[in-house]
Amino acid sequence: MILTVTLNAALDITYQVPAMIGGTTHRVSEVAERAGGKGLNVARLLHALGEPVVATGLAGGTTGARIRSLLAAEGVPDSFVPVAAESRRTVTVADEEEATGFWEPGPLVTAAEWRAFVTRYTGLMKVAEVAVLAGSLPPGVPEDAYATLLGLARAAGVCTVLDADGPALRHGLAARPDLVKPNARELSHLQSHVLGRRVAVGSLAGAHDAVEAMRGLGAKDVVATLAGAGLIAFTRAGTWRAYLPSARKGNPTGAGDACVVALVSNRRRPWPERLVDAVALAAATVAQPVAGTVELLDWRRLRHAVRIEAW
Amino acid sequence: MILTVTLNAALDITYQVPAMIGGTTHRVSEVAERAGGKGLNVARLLHALGEPVVATGLAGGTTGARIRSLLAAEGVPDSFVPVAAESRRTVTVADEEEATGFWEPGPLVTAAEWRAFVTRYTGLMKVAEVAVLAGSLPPGVPEDAYATLLGLARAAGVCTVLDADGPALRHGLAARPDLVKPNARELSHLQSHVLGRRVAVGSLAGAHDAVEAMRGLGAKDVVATLAGAGLIAFTRAGTWRAYLPSARKGNPTGAGDACVVALVSNRRRPWPERLVDAVALAAATVAQPVAGTVELLDWRRLRHAVRIEAW
Repeated sequence: MILTVTLNAALDITYQVPAMIGGTTHRVSEVAERAGGKGLNVARLLHALGEPVVATGLAGGTTGARIRSLLAAEGVPDSFVPVAAESRRTVTVADEEEATGFWEPGPLVTAAEWRAFVTRYTGLMKVAEVAVLAGSLPPGVPEDAYATLLGLARAAGVCTVLDADGPALRHGLAARPDLVKPNARELSHLQSHVLGRRVAVGSLAGAHDAVEAMRGLGAKDVVATLAGAGLIAFTRAGTWRAYLPSARKGNPTGAGDACVVALVSNRRRPWPERLVDAVALAAATVAQPVAGTVELLDWRRLRHAVRIEAW
Repeated sequence: MILTVTLNAALDITYQVPAMIGGTTHRVSEVAERAGGKGLNVARLLHALGEPVVATGLAGGTTGARIRSLLAAEGVPDSFVPVAAESRRTVTVADEEEATGFWEPGPLVTAAEWRAFVTRYTGLMKVAEVAVLAGSLPPGVPEDAYATLLGLARAAGVCTVLDADGPALRHGLAARPDLVKPNARELSHLQSHVLGRRVAVGSLAGAHDAVEAMRGLGAKDVVATLAGAGLIAFTRAGTWRAYLPSARKGNPTGAGDACVVALVSNRRRPWPERLVDAVALAAATVAQPVAGTVELLDWRRLRHAVRIEAW
């Protein structure tokens, strides 16, 4: 079983409007809701692919209840731990030109709630094969939360994947996760923190340096997603770059989560196959109008278009 | 007891952001939530003034549950009838310059749910002294819903106040409500429908004609709020205009609801006193930073500034 951890679960709300004009009132023509947060995006897609998955994390209030009922409607087994405060919402307003986002802060989690989560997670470690720790930490959860959870996974012999940013990522790296999946922005944040100055990782060479720094900090394998430039992988078995020769237009939200899904789902296959599949699944996600969905035939077809090179 | 009816109750969410920029993602610094919809705004303010009030209407799903828990936290007694679909949210994004609104459509109400509401309302008519019917109708509720409810109130000897727009208002007028409280936009909609063309009611004379038309359609008394121009009242006891000599800056949301509150709360006093109080309470509401709240000392002070003239 694959366990996904979403400590700052969200209710993702998308509004369609004909044209967004600041300072006016809009009647929303269409409302879409889904359970969100990186870990839940990963859980939903793994479940859609037929992988046995359990989603845990923290959820609170009526928004938390809505998140859990949406998961239940999709058939994703949930083992969320309740918190007293309201889980956050994200609101995305989409018109024909662009998307504008509003992200609420997360719920304030108490020390007792965090301890209750650690107890639940420790129990789940007895039945999990892989633990995917993904997304931001809500207020009140300690900065080294992922380090704690990674340590518990290692003690239980559970394979770990970390997809985080900022201090949560830095603390996590020190706990030696098996696989880390940064994107260009996260690489840049980390690199600038380590070097004490802002750096650009837009170039492949820049990204290369940042990924090497990440391994120096403790990551065993690193797969970095670089949007149009595909991904680069620095693993204990070798180093690769995989990409599509022509970039695809669409909604990039969820492409990184799709990459994690492909890497976890194919975890017993050789690295080059895993990487090709990850690029294809991310690209198939980008092509879909609704963030985080995938058309499976598109995925299959795209696999043949992905190029992979030793690096 | 005053009964307020809110058939399309809302969860009003306000986001504070430093500056709203289309096409970007914003971290919301502050989230405020309140139970909304015209009828609930009226109920909350009546309750704050110490009037015995019960709020009824339709509420559904986790959003409906949140609306009811916010009402409970403020101590407003609720007798809402549940519906299966999710109640609507409104999202207002406020930065230092302006406010941008997003209004979801209401829940689809089934015929059985509407019948259940009518049954509940009929029961409440035995204990109510005044029924305030205010706001939009959700999908599935018949256009003549307010006419039905006004008929049941009259049969029970309950005094009625109608604050609506469009077809709901037109059908309602035919059922002869005791008091109707339109604003300039609602007067304009009604007038253009009756005349078959678009009309401006920006002038006092134009508003006068529209209010007379409204009485011709069935309204017994009409008090129209005209923003900066105060209000005009056409009643069975006489005709008045009441206004503040200098318009007040602020947030006009909720000023119309405050006017209804003052008229209902002072229902046993002479019309001129009711009207002065209504202008003062609406102005005190406009001066508050949070929509629909009121500073009572400000209200008291403003009463002395209101001018009233026979019309």
